[in-house]
Amino acid sequence: MPSSPFALDLKPPYYAVIFPSMRTAGDGDYEETARLMAELARTMPGFLGIESARSADGFGITVSYWRDEASIRNWRRYSEHVMAQERGKREWYQHYELRIARVERAYSGPEGRD
Amino acid sequence: MPSSPFALDLKPPYYAVIFPSMRTAGDGDYEETARLMAELARTMPGFLGIESARSADGFGITVSYWRDEASIRNWRRYSEHVMAQERGKREWYQHYELRIARVERAYSGPEGRD
Repeated sequence: MPSSPFALDLKPPYYAVIFPSMRTAGDGDYEETARLMAELARTMPGFLGIESARSADGFGITVSYWRDEASIRNWRRYSEHVMAQERGKREWYQHYELRIARVERAYSGPEGRD
Repeated sequence: MPSSPFALDLKPPYYAVIFPSMRTAGDGDYEETARLMAELARTMPGFLGIESARSADGFGITVSYWRDEASIRNWRRYSEHVMAQERGKREWYQHYELRIARVERAYSGPEGRD
């Protein structure tokens, strides 16, 4: 999944979906489908951006940003119609968490803070 | 920084500090100091857990979880007295964002969802 470090210019409040996951050993066509899913997300109403990192041990965190909770519900509902999520459950992830959070404040650095 | 994938059993609402960052090329003693900072965080009131992933290209996401905003303020204030943050600004990170968010709902999988 492509990460977009710091291309985002987001003004709180907005919503974050925090998605930590542990990849399984077999990759399958994960990268290609993940890329497609991210492209799809970009077309959804209320999508603001996405960031993703994965360590060599297979543990990764993806955070997607959304305008409001309705946008997240809509995206979840839609994506459930897409094969990738079903395949994700079965093959790609040993385990994952999904945390939906309202971003209330933000800072950036190191060039300037607060 | 140590990640604790899925050792966390958190009940919303709680707070997340989302910390995406791009590492500079020179590591210095980052890993050792980051480990100490995480150990220190664990001793702070209201600390609930931490997750971290960093890709080979240097982009990483760390999410720490806290009971409330007061705990986060307290941790920030305290950590500003610790060398690591100052060194972090100067050496370790090209750029970072710090997003403070209230986690309102959570799911886990793939064994069970919702």
